[in-house]
Amino acid sequence: MNTTVGEIADLVKGRLIRGAREVELTNFAALDQADATCVSFFGNPKYKDQLAATEAGLVLVPDDSVEVPETAALVLVDNPILAFDSIVKAFGIKPPAFEAGIHETAWVAPDVVLETGKVSVLANATVSAGVSIGAGTRIGSGAVIGERVVIGEDCEIGPNVTIREGCILGDRIVLHAGVVIGGDGFGFEFVEGRHQKIDQLGIVRVESDVEIGASTTIDRARFGETVIGEGTKIDNQVQIGHNVIIGKHCVIVAQTGISGSTRIGDYVTLAAQCGIAGHITIADRVTCGGRSGVIASIKEPGGTYFGYPARPLKDDRRESMRIKQLGSLFKRVKKLEEGAES
Amino acid sequence: MNTTVGEIADLVKGRLIRGAREVELTNFAALDQADATCVSFFGNPKYKDQLAATEAGLVLVPDDSVEVPETAALVLVDNPILAFDSIVKAFGIKPPAFEAGIHETAWVAPDVVLETGKVSVLANATVSAGVSIGAGTRIGSGAVIGERVVIGEDCEIGPNVTIREGCILGDRIVLHAGVVIGGDGFGFEFVEGRHQKIDQLGIVRVESDVEIGASTTIDRARFGETVIGEGTKIDNQVQIGHNVIIGKHCVIVAQTGISGSTRIGDYVTLAAQCGIAGHITIADRVTCGGRSGVIASIKEPGGTYFGYPARPLKDDRRESMRIKQLGSLFKRVKKLEEGAES
Amino acid sequence: MNTTVGEIADLVKGRLIRGAREVELTNFAALDQADATCVSFFGNPKYKDQLAATEAGLVLVPDDSVEVPETAALVLVDNPILAFDSIVKAFGIKPPAFEAGIHETAWVAPDVVLETGKVSVLANATVSAGVSIGAGTRIGSGAVIGERVVIGEDCEIGPNVTIREGCILGDRIVLHAGVVIGGDGFGFEFVEGRHQKIDQLGIVRVESDVEIGASTTIDRARFGETVIGEGTKIDNQVQIGHNVIIGKHCVIVAQTGISGSTRIGDYVTLAAQCGIAGHITIADRVTCGGRSGVIASIKEPGGTYFGYPARPLKDDRRESMRIKQLGSLFKRVKKLEEGAES
Repeated sequence: MNTTVGEIADLVKGRLIRGAREVELTNFAALDQADATCVSFFGNPKYKDQLAATEAGLVLVPDDSVEVPETAALVLVDNPILAFDSIVKAFGIKPPAFEAGIHETAWVAPDVVLETGKVSVLANATVSAGVSIGAGTRIGSGAVIGERVVIGEDCEIGPNVTIREGCILGDRIVLHAGVVIGGDGFGFEFVEGRHQKIDQLGIVRVESDVEIGASTTIDRARFGETVIGEGTKIDNQVQIGHNVIIGKHCVIVAQTGISGSTRIGDYVTLAAQCGIAGHITIADRVTCGGRSGVIASIKEPGGTYFGYPARPLKDDRRESMRIKQLGSLFKRVKKLEEGAES
Repeated sequence: MNTTVGEIADLVKGRLIRGAREVELTNFAALDQADATCVSFFGNPKYKDQLAATEAGLVLVPDDSVEVPETAALVLVDNPILAFDSIVKAFGIKPPAFEAGIHETAWVAPDVVLETGKVSVLANATVSAGVSIGAGTRIGSGAVIGERVVIGEDCEIGPNVTIREGCILGDRIVLHAGVVIGGDGFGFEFVEGRHQKIDQLGIVRVESDVEIGASTTIDRARFGETVIGEGTKIDNQVQIGHNVIIGKHCVIVAQTGISGSTRIGDYVTLAAQCGIAGHITIADRVTCGGRSGVIASIKEPGGTYFGYPARPLKDDRRESMRIKQLGSLFKRVKKLEEGAES
Repeated sequence: MNTTVGEIADLVKGRLIRGAREVELTNFAALDQADATCVSFFGNPKYKDQLAATEAGLVLVPDDSVEVPETAALVLVDNPILAFDSIVKAFGIKPPAFEAGIHETAWVAPDVVLETGKVSVLANATVSAGVSIGAGTRIGSGAVIGERVVIGEDCEIGPNVTIREGCILGDRIVLHAGVVIGGDGFGFEFVEGRHQKIDQLGIVRVESDVEIGASTTIDRARFGETVIGEGTKIDNQVQIGHNVIIGKHCVIVAQTGISGSTRIGDYVTLAAQCGIAGHITIADRVTCGGRSGVIASIKEPGGTYFGYPARPLKDDRRESMRIKQLGSLFKRVKKLEEGAES
């Protein structure tokens, strides 16, 4: 961005209570990351120490009694969080504008069903035979949409995404770059010293309002469907095996893996780097802490789990505490032994 | 699919022993996932409870004395597993038919060696100079084949795959979408405060009948070869470092990482999310459980290992058991202390 | 390669002290991996046992008193490591030569700023509107460069890489195949039973001399910048969350994940499969061992940490030792109990 203290004060309809209007600003940042070129904001009393030490060129503040280094201009606003948001919206990176049309370097098979003038297919994308794409959907550059894939309306299919044949996507889905939907499930039978492939003839169905992070992979079902439920949000580099069924409005954080045929309920949270065994069930509203390894079904809804093997949080804490106290336990046993000897 | 109870009974050459021929069926699923639109099957007595509770519209059964809800039609067959397989094959997703030819949007360098009429290069794929491709091989849309790569016969190179310069692939290899073969190994020398790159001048050699899952990455050797042995099957998001040598007919499950210069024997199984240190050896037929961390060579063939650091399964179990009993140990020590005091 | 013992002796200016000049050699390998077709080298006394057992066709040796099987020809050189390096350089895989120009199948938006004749854009690559690319930079086949991205000089952007809109790269950066720079950060607010997306309007800035491994993903900032500091080297399949700031000359090994808003100092090493929590700080020159899970800030520079939760190496070792001794502790307590009873 390329603005000044005065322009920011005007934009957020605030009052400049310290500093000069003409000072230039080129960036925005949190209080502890800001330098003299940045506008920042004080929206939460718990950041008082950061405010007192900030190097920001301008801080949006809710009252004039706060302690801020002299180097910062101050603009008084009702709600610094909302005011800062409006600056971010005004000057932040804008996603590319949606422009309907098929790019001259894209390839779209002749029988693809899409409403001309309402779908965007970007450069070097490939849309195979039998595909159907809803209005308002954009296919990113380099993306590959396999045969007979069905994509709903207002979806954002990122660059270099792959959706394999036959998979079905709802509406308002976001797939970030490099996502792979519908690779074969990992299934082999060991016959006479060799692994024979078990055909993977099902699909992946992604329900509406799902978002999937960069380079996440979701395998097609052995038969039937691998399902990602409505509104579920999946982070980068997550791996989801064949025939997994994930409920609605779950949150699955980066680098988590879910093995084949497992069923995850609704409103489940799996923090980063979890591993979930195959053929188990996780009940609704369960939360698994970072790096949990779930090897057996969790049937009671709503609990918080941790560790490997995952167990209720308080059991995990108690065990960790005991392990921490092992040093003193060894000493206590030694003392008992010395007492017994004497 | 779009069929009826009667058509399914005919297809599997079974006998309809309950229900109406004209009931429509549109999907297939396991007993516990099926609804009224689905055909399912009862192939293993251990699923008796699922059978008794299934909501399937039609179940293939091996005898007429089984207990199944009244809502399900029943078709009697000799072998429900084989019968169901034939339905899946008839109605499941078919991989795109192989059609030889170079797509008009693909780019194939003039000197590429391929038998015209026997190789398929799909849309927006890139085949660089000096490449050689065997008959029956398909290069997926958006795939990039680097200079002087050699690919054998009947390989399936998935969409958006990258194979870097000089790598060598055998026959009947399957690479799923997003795989990267032949990126540089991660090697640097620390010189005067900076990391200097060590040239990575070797290749990756993938032997015949290997299958590699989506977004898996295999680095080229520092010199010589990184090798994936014949018949080995690798799942999604596996990372294999430079100069790793993997034997024949191994199974390496999702999100496992193998550090540089390690040698894995034949028929080794690494379950999901394992980490294998560099410069070690794992003997033939070793199995490492999910999330094992192997930090030293395993020289004895055939064992099962677990934990981090990985150790024989029974040692890992014993240790876990002891940790579980820590609570009672603390109590026992306390009781001893009380006895000593009194 | 396709050479002979005599040609190798000449190339390294060595003296053939055993074997025939005309024996053919086709590969190079370490002592323990070499067969009769390979040249190898003995550069470090610790590999004496490997030397005594090698099957190499030719070994470069520093003196004539070493013990090597009769099957190997021997060439005497001053420094076998340097001599072998020169062979690898002469015969190893060469990266494709840099040829300036825009490939006929690439798409480069009309307003892109690049010095014609000094930039290379390979087949099926996409360079969007508003992009600027420095001299000596190569954009790999199938790569997608988003709107208004800025790339410096002499960068190597690998095949099928994605750089999303607005991100900024310095000079001499290497991005390996499948890297994704600038996907949205994973940020949602839970409102009335649904996860609402928080706009991600910042960018990723990658400073000069950074190298990033295949399929690594780095998310754009919520606002401001996610930063990868100068000279930092990142391995394959690493995940870096939004607003993370990584210092200069760090080494981050494969499959590590760093959660949002965390700050990593300079010269930090994170070994493979680490997990770093969000909103914490890691001081300069800290080393975290493989698979460490860092859940709280590490404020003291220079230490080595291990385990989950990560702690100083010696604490981790001591705890592991105590756990190993649990078996004997149980026995000791049992003995005390028996003594107390009698």
